[in-house]
Amino acid sequence: MPKRIDHQQRRQQIADAVCRLAGREGLEGVSLRHVAAEAGISMGRVQHYFATKDQMLMFTFQAISQRVEQRMGAVVNRLEQPGDPKSLLRAMLVEMLPLSQQARAEAPVLVAFLARIIVEPKLADPLREDNGRLNGFVAEQILGAQQNNAASAELDPVREATALLALVDGLMIHLLTHQVAAPAALAALDGQLDRIFPAP
Amino acid sequence: MPKRIDHQQRRQQIADAVCRLAGREGLEGVSLRHVAAEAGISMGRVQHYFATKDQMLMFTFQAISQRVEQRMGAVVNRLEQPGDPKSLLRAMLVEMLPLSQQARAEAPVLVAFLARIIVEPKLADPLREDNGRLNGFVAEQILGAQQNNAASAELDPVREATALLALVDGLMIHLLTHQVAAPAALAALDGQLDRIFPAP
Repeated sequence: MPKRIDHQQRRQQIADAVCRLAGREGLEGVSLRHVAAEAGISMGRVQHYFATKDQMLMFTFQAISQRVEQRMGAVVNRLEQPGDPKSLLRAMLVEMLPLSQQARAEAPVLVAFLARIIVEPKLADPLREDNGRLNGFVAEQILGAQQNNAASAELDPVREATALLALVDGLMIHLLTHQVAAPAALAALDGQLDRIFPAP
Repeated sequence: MPKRIDHQQRRQQIADAVCRLAGREGLEGVSLRHVAAEAGISMGRVQHYFATKDQMLMFTFQAISQRVEQRMGAVVNRLEQPGDPKSLLRAMLVEMLPLSQQARAEAPVLVAFLARIIVEPKLADPLREDNGRLNGFVAEQILGAQQNNAASAELDPVREATALLALVDGLMIHLLTHQVAAPAALAALDGQLDRIFPAP
């Protein structure tokens, strides 16, 4: 299916160009024309995929989300203790922080996208779906661990999931704006995980 | 000192105009010209205060920060238990969430400013100073409570302060993007505070 492969490659190529531009200049530097120039493809080709800047941002956001999910899946597959919910959640949540080169390139686009969603709420649907699914998954891991006496029984799994995901997004912002250093951010996350999943 | 009053009023007037514009259209809708029109003052008057958009954003960010600090001070003064660190921190941190009409108008500008800082790190200094001071204050409250047996002795105050402030910024973003509702956000915050300051 060469056409499908082309399409996927093009998506990736355009999302990469948006990331590079947004990482250098913010979303204000991202026009369809600039993206075409950055990606080294024609303006018409970019417009073939999306007619407006918001469509292009949505597209990039989804492409990044997919890559983050793929990376999460990869780290989960490499876990030493695959059945352990604490190791699994830690690996996933650390992957959401801008600590790797890849994540540091993507995170500014995610924050710019969040800022845009605030004034353009119709863009929020994919984010809400992703986050709702993620919240449910984290809560399930905590609930499962509670049933195996590996997590504190008195905690509300949904409330803990909400707090963990908000903590990680807050740490992402504080890391990107150099308000916190990586070791302190990881210590804050580990403090939460150690409380939810105390050592036996 | 009528001149000083004028200056303060003008600062406020311009910051309000930036907030209204950014709240409607994001920072992309904020040019010196648009702000002048929105504030109902001349372009020359706006340029008297700042020559560039980044100067204007910095100014608005600082004006908002001052107002948030004033509101924090006001709620702290109204506390029923003024000496209680848990009530004090809760009142301050809730004030940082976009739950009041005023905070809902300001928060989109703060997020837009955060997104801008990521690609323009020289803008980060006032944010880092404010956050460093706030982090120190929160850590001091926790340490003081530990010394009075009102907070869990085994916690690291600085790490807890880092986590609390990241949690609040994450909840702010999740509230603004409708990923979490106000009661769930408050429950997440209260869960953290109840853990740091357990009931006697």
